[in-house]
Amino acid sequence: MLLSALLTSVAINSGLCILFCTLYSILRKQPSNYAVYAPHLLAEGKSKRRSRFNLERLIPSPDWLQTAWKLSEEELLSSSGLDAVVFMRLITFSMKVFLFAGIIGIFIILPVNCSGELHIVDFTDLPSNSLDVFTISNIGNRSKKLWVHFSAVYVVTAFICYLLYYEYRYVSSKRMAYFYSSKPQPHQFTVLVHSIPVSVEGSISDTVDRFFMEYHPSAYLSHVVIRRTSKLRSLTNDAKQLYRRLIHLKSDHTQQKDRRSSCFGLFGRKVDLANQYEKQLEDIEHNVRLEQASLAGEKEARAAFVSFKSRYGAAIAFHLQQSTNPIEWITEEAPEPDDVNWPFFSSSFIHRWISKLTVLVACITLTIVFLIPVFFVQGLTNLNQLENWFPFLKSILTIKFVSQLITGYLPSLILQLFLKMVPPIMLFLSSIQGYISQSNIEISACNKVLWFTIWNVFFATVFSGTALYVVDIFLDPKNIPGRLAVAVPAQASFFIAYVVTTGWTSVSSELFRMFPLLCSLIMRPFTGSIDNELEVPPLPFHRDIPKILFFALLGITYFFLAPLILPFLLAYLCLGYIIYRNQFINVYAPRYETAGKFWPIVHDSMIFSLVLMHAIAVGIFTLKKLSLASTFIFPLPVLTLLFNWYCRKRFLPNFVGYSAESLIKKDRQEENDPAMKEFFDKLVTAYQDPALMPFWFSSSTDGLNSPLLSSAQERG
Amino acid sequence: MLLSALLTSVAINSGLCILFCTLYSILRKQPSNYAVYAPHLLAEGKSKRRSRFNLERLIPSPDWLQTAWKLSEEELLSSSGLDAVVFMRLITFSMKVFLFAGIIGIFIILPVNCSGELHIVDFTDLPSNSLDVFTISNIGNRSKKLWVHFSAVYVVTAFICYLLYYEYRYVSSKRMAYFYSSKPQPHQFTVLVHSIPVSVEGSISDTVDRFFMEYHPSAYLSHVVIRRTSKLRSLTNDAKQLYRRLIHLKSDHTQQKDRRSSCFGLFGRKVDLANQYEKQLEDIEHNVRLEQASLAGEKEARAAFVSFKSRYGAAIAFHLQQSTNPIEWITEEAPEPDDVNWPFFSSSFIHRWISKLTVLVACITLTIVFLIPVFFVQGLTNLNQLENWFPFLKSILTIKFVSQLITGYLPSLILQLFLKMVPPIMLFLSSIQGYISQSNIEISACNKVLWFTIWNVFFATVFSGTALYVVDIFLDPKNIPGRLAVAVPAQASFFIAYVVTTGWTSVSSELFRMFPLLCSLIMRPFTGSIDNELEVPPLPFHRDIPKILFFALLGITYFFLAPLILPFLLAYLCLGYIIYRNQFINVYAPRYETAGKFWPIVHDSMIFSLVLMHAIAVGIFTLKKLSLASTFIFPLPVLTLLFNWYCRKRFLPNFVGYSAESLIKKDRQEENDPAMKEFFDKLVTAYQDPALMPFWFSSSTDGLNSPLLSSAQERG
Repeated sequence: MLLSALLTSVAINSGLCILFCTLYSILRKQPSNYAVYAPHLLAEGKSKRRSRFNLERLIPSPDWLQTAWKLSEEELLSSSGLDAVVFMRLITFSMKVFLFAGIIGIFIILPVNCSGELHIVDFTDLPSNSLDVFTISNIGNRSKKLWVHFSAVYVVTAFICYLLYYEYRYVSSKRMAYFYSSKPQPHQFTVLVHSIPVSVEGSISDTVDRFFMEYHPSAYLSHVVIRRTSKLRSLTNDAKQLYRRLIHLKSDHTQQKDRRSSCFGLFGRKVDLANQYEKQLEDIEHNVRLEQASLAGEKEARAAFVSFKSRYGAAIAFHLQQSTNPIEWITEEAPEPDDVNWPFFSSSFIHRWISKLTVLVACITLTIVFLIPVFFVQGLTNLNQLENWFPFLKSILTIKFVSQLITGYLPSLILQLFLKMVPPIMLFLSSIQGYISQSNIEISACNKVLWFTIWNVFFATVFSGTALYVVDIFLDPKNIPGRLAVAVPAQASFFIAYVVTTGWTSVSSELFRMFPLLCSLIMRPFTGSIDNELEVPPLPFHRDIPKILFFALLGITYFFLAPLILPFLLAYLCLGYIIYRNQFINVYAPRYETAGKFWPIVHDSMIFSLVLMHAIAVGIFTLKKLSLASTFIFPLPVLTLLFNWYCRKRFLPNFVGYSAESLIKKDRQEENDPAMKEFFDKLVTAYQDPALMPFWFSSSTDGLNSPLLSSAQERG
Repeated sequence: MLLSALLTSVAINSGLCILFCTLYSILRKQPSNYAVYAPHLLAEGKSKRRSRFNLERLIPSPDWLQTAWKLSEEELLSSSGLDAVVFMRLITFSMKVFLFAGIIGIFIILPVNCSGELHIVDFTDLPSNSLDVFTISNIGNRSKKLWVHFSAVYVVTAFICYLLYYEYRYVSSKRMAYFYSSKPQPHQFTVLVHSIPVSVEGSISDTVDRFFMEYHPSAYLSHVVIRRTSKLRSLTNDAKQLYRRLIHLKSDHTQQKDRRSSCFGLFGRKVDLANQYEKQLEDIEHNVRLEQASLAGEKEARAAFVSFKSRYGAAIAFHLQQSTNPIEWITEEAPEPDDVNWPFFSSSFIHRWISKLTVLVACITLTIVFLIPVFFVQGLTNLNQLENWFPFLKSILTIKFVSQLITGYLPSLILQLFLKMVPPIMLFLSSIQGYISQSNIEISACNKVLWFTIWNVFFATVFSGTALYVVDIFLDPKNIPGRLAVAVPAQASFFIAYVVTTGWTSVSSELFRMFPLLCSLIMRPFTGSIDNELEVPPLPFHRDIPKILFFALLGITYFFLAPLILPFLLAYLCLGYIIYRNQFINVYAPRYETAGKFWPIVHDSMIFSLVLMHAIAVGIFTLKKLSLASTFIFPLPVLTLLFNWYCRKRFLPNFVGYSAESLIKKDRQEENDPAMKEFFDKLVTAYQDPALMPFWFSSSTDGLNSPLLSSAQERG
C-alpha cells in the first residue's frame, strides 16, 4: 500500500465525518427528530418540542460540541450513572496511552524506521512511498536500531501498567463513593436464594420462612417466592400490543375528528375495529386474572428473593454457604428490581443446564466458523458470477469504477454487515445462558463480543485465513511468536486503513444514528406522536466497549511496528470522546447500574493486548536475529502478569462485593433515619414479578394511561 | 519380556515379602524394638516393655495379621483420626475398582487378547510366551474384537465414577459427623488475620482490638498478636539440644553409678562436661528471657489470631472481605494450635513472596530436569567406566552374575533412591512456600509428589526420554493421543514388573521399617532409653498417598491394554490394606487432623487417570483403524469431566469450610454447656507462640522433666 492510497482514504473518511457531523447539527434541530436525537433530554423534560419554524433550524451550528466539551464528570455521573463515567474513562485512558505512545512512536520510532536499511525514503515525493518504509520491516537483521524499539516496548508497557493501576484505583474509589452516597436500594438488602429443597410439610414459602427464621433470626425481613410466569407473561405481552394498537386507533380517531375529515368511510370501520380490540383485550384480561389467581397457589419455582433488615445481613447470607448440602439454598446477590431477568426463573434446572451447554458450544462454533459463510458470500461477489445471475448488469459492470467498487468494497462491506450482527447474537446467546439479571447478560455479551472480535478480526486477518486455520496455529503453541512476527507486520497497512475507515465511520455514524433515524422516518406516517411511547435507549455497552478495546489492542500491538497508526487512532478517540459525551447528554439513559463492573473487562483486555504485544516483540527480535533483545523481552510478560495478579488481589474483590467495613458503616449511617421504615415497607414488595402486578387496561383506554405503563415509566 | 521372566520376578518378590513379614513378626516382639514397631501403642500405654525373655519371642507368629484384620473403622477413627480412615478408604476404594476391573479384564479381555490375530498363544509351554500375547497389541487392525475393549472402557469408567461419587459422599458425611461430634476446639473459634495496617496511634494489638470491637462487637472475644520469634526460636532450639545432651549425660552418670563402674576416669570428665553444659544452658536461658522481654513491646508481625465467641462469628469473619482495601485485614481459617507453622510468621511479606516464586520455579525445574542427573549417574554405572575408576573391581566385574546385577539392577536402584528423596524435598519446598499450617504444607507436598511421580515415572518411562522431551510432546497437544497409543502399550511389561517389584517391596518394607530400625540399632549404644524422648511418628501422607494413587493410575490406564497387571495390583492393595492397618494400630499417631482434606486430591487424581485412559483409548482405536470406536469414545471424557464438575459443586465446598446451618446448630448445642466458660478461658491463650512460653530448663534438669517438654507431650 502506498502512502498516497492511505491519504486518499483519510481524505474520503474525513469528508464523510464532516458530512455526518454537519447533517447531524441540522437534523437534530428538527422537532420531528427529537425522539431520535434527544430522547434523554425529552424524557427528563429539559427539551420541549418547538414546532415554530425559524431559519436557524437549517443552518449547521457547532453549539452541541461546546455543550459536550463542557460536561463535567459529576454532571455525567448524576445524569447517566457510573457506567457512563467508566465508559468515558475508557476513552480518556486510551487517549492518554496513545498520546504517550504517539509521541514516542512519531518522534523516535518513525525516524528510526525511515532511516532503515531496506528501503530509502523518497523525500521528494513522499506520497509515492510504500507504507513499509515507515514500519519495522524497513530495518535490517541484527541492526542496532532495534534496541530503540526494544526500549520503547519497555517504556510504553511500564506507562500503560502505571495508568492501568491508577485507573483501576480511581474507578474502584468511584464505586465505593457511589455506594456510600447511594440511597438505600432494594437490591442491597436482598439476596436471591435458589435450589430451595422441596419439603413435604408445606409450600416453598413456608420452607423459606422457616429456614431464615431459624438461621438468620435477627436480620431476616421478608421474602418473595418466584413463580413460573411464562404463560402469564406472554398473555401480558399480547395485551400490551393490543392496547397499543387500540391507543393508536383512538388517537387517530381523535385527530381525524379534529381535522373534521371523515371521508372514505374509514371512520366507521375504525370504530368497529376499536370495539373489536377492546373486546379482545377484555378477554385477555380475564385470562390474565384467572392465571394470576391460579398462580397464587402453585407453580412456585424453587427460588425466592429474601430481604434482610441490613446490608450486612444480606452480605452474610450471600457469602456463607447456607446449607450442609452445598447444592441447596444457594445464594446470589440480587439484581436491581428492574434489572431482574424474569424469564430465567420460568425454566427448569435441567433446561437451564442444557441451554448453558448449548450456548457454550454455539459461541465456540460461531467464533470458529464465522468467517466461512462470509468468505462464501464474498466468493459470490466476483463479477462473472454476478453477470451470470443478472445478465442485465453486464453493461454497468464493464465500467471500471463500478467493478472496482464492487470487488474492492463489497467484500469488506459484507464482512462489516456480518460483524454488525454479532453483538445482538451474543446478547441473545447470553440471555439464554442463565443469568438472573440484564446487566450480567450484558457483561457476559460484552466479553463474548470482545473475544469474538479479537479472534475473527485480528487473528483471522493477521493469518489471512479462516478461524479454523487459526485454531490450528494455536494448537502449536511453541511457534506462535514466530508466526505472529511474520504475519502481524505484514498487515500493518491494512489495520491503519481499518482504523481510518471502520473506526472513523463507526463513531460518526454513532452520532448520526442512521438506523433509528431511518426507523423513525419510515414509521412516522403510521404512528401518532404519543409522548408515552417515547423509549430512551441505554448505550449498548456490549457493542461499544469491545469496539474501543479492539482499537486499543490494535494500537498497543502496532505502536512499535508501524507507529503511523497512532495519529489516526488518536483522531478516532478524540472523535469518540466528544461524540459519546454528546450522546450521553442527549440520547442515552441508563436502565440499570452495574456501578463500574465493566472496568475489569477493560483491564483484562489491556493486559491481554500487552502480553500479545510482547509475544510479537519476541518473535520480531528473533526474526531479526537480535536474540539478546528477544531474551530480555521475556521478563516483561512475566512482570505484566504479576502486575495483573496484584491488581486482581488489590481491586477485583471490590467489584464483586462490598466489604464488611463499608456495609456496616453504611448500615449505621441509616440506623436512625426515619425514612428507613417506609423503605422497608416498600422493600417487602419490591421484587414482585411484574407479570403478577394488578392489571387493567380495558377500563383505562379512555384515559390513555394504564397503571402498568405508568409504573414502568416510573421505574425507567 | 517373556512370561517366565515375569513369573521369576513374582517368585523373588513374593519370597522377599514373606521374608520381610516373617522377620517383622519376630523383631516386633523384641523389647528393644518396641520403639520402632509399636511407638503408638507405647505412647498410649497399651503396651509395656517386657524385658523377660521367653522362647515365644523367637518364633514368627501371625497374630498381628488377625489384629489388623479385625480393626473396625470406628476403632481406627478413634485411635488414628479421620485422616487415617480416609487413607484406608483410598485403599479399599482401589481394591473395589480393581476387583471389578480385574474380573472384566481377566475373564473377558484377556481371552480376547489371547485369541488375537498377531501371535498364537503356545498353551503347551505358557511361560515361554511373550507378554505381548496378553495385551491389546495382539489384536489386528480393524478387528471387531476391539469393541470388547470399547465396552470395557465404558463399563469400568461408569463403575469408577459411581464409586467415586459414593466415596466422596461417604467421606463428606464422615467429615460432617466428625465436626458435629467434636469437642469445641480453638481453631473452630479462631481466624488468622494478616496484613493488618500499621496505625500511628497505637500498637498492632490496639488496632486489632479497635477494628473487631467496631465491626464484630457481639462475636469478638480476644486476640493474640504474632511476634517475630525467629531469633528466640533458634535460642530455644539450642537450649533444647543442650538440655537433651545434659539429660543424657546425667542418666548415663546415674546408670554408671548403678553399675558402680567408674573406670577409665570418664566419670570425672563427664561431670565436668555436665557442669559446663549447665552453665551454657543458664546463659542461653538468660538470653531467652532477655529476648522474650524485648519481644513484649516490639517485633509485632502484622498478623494476629482473633478468637470469637461462636463458630459462626469466626466463619463470618473468615468469609467476608473485612476491609474496603482488599489487601488489608485478610482473614484465613486458623489451624489447630499444634498445627501452626510458626516460622512462617517471622518472614516479611516480600521475603515470603520471593520464596513462593522461588518454590514454584524450583518445583517446575525439579520436575522437568529430574531425570537428567539420574541418567547421568546411570551412565556412570556402565562397567568400563567403573573399571577405569576402580581397577581392583576388575576381577569381580568379570563374573557374569555380578555384571548382570550391576547393569540390570543398579540403574533402577539409583532411580528408586532418587525417587525416595522426592517426598522430603517436596515437603521442604512446600514448607517455605508460605503456608500457615503443617497440614497445609503436607497437602501441598502431597500434590507436588503426585504430579512429580506421574510426570517423571509414567510419562518419562512411556516416552522413554527425559521430561524435557516429554514437555516437547505436550507442546504439540493435537498428537498426544496418537503418541500415547504408540508408547503406552509398549511399556506394559515394564509397568507390570514395576508393580511387582517396586509396589510389593515398598509396602513390605513399610511394614519392616528398615530405616527406623537401622537408626535405632545404630543409635542404641549412644542413647539412653528415656521414655520422654519416644517420638510417635505420623504417617507421611505426602509420601504414601501419591504412591497408591500412582499405582491406581497404572491400573486404570492399563486395565484394557494389558489386563495381566490387575492381579498383581490387587495383591499389592491387599498387602497394603493389612499392613497399613497394622501400622496405624502400632506405629503411627496423628499429629493434627485435616478431617479428610486429602480426599479431594484422591478424587482429582482418579479423574485425571480416567481422562488419560480415554485419551489412550482414542489413540489406540485410531491406530487400530477403528475410527468409529475412537469417535464414540469422545463423549466419555466430556461426561467424566462434567461428573467431576458436579462433584466439585456437590462436595468440595464442605471440604473448604462449614455451612452456616451446621455452624449455628453446633453453636446452639453448646450454648448452655457450663464447660464452655472454661473453654473460652483457655481459648484466650491457646495461640501463644510456643517460643514465648515460660521457659526454664536449668532448674529442672534434676527432675528430668521440663515444663516445655511436658507441655509439648500433652499436646501431642
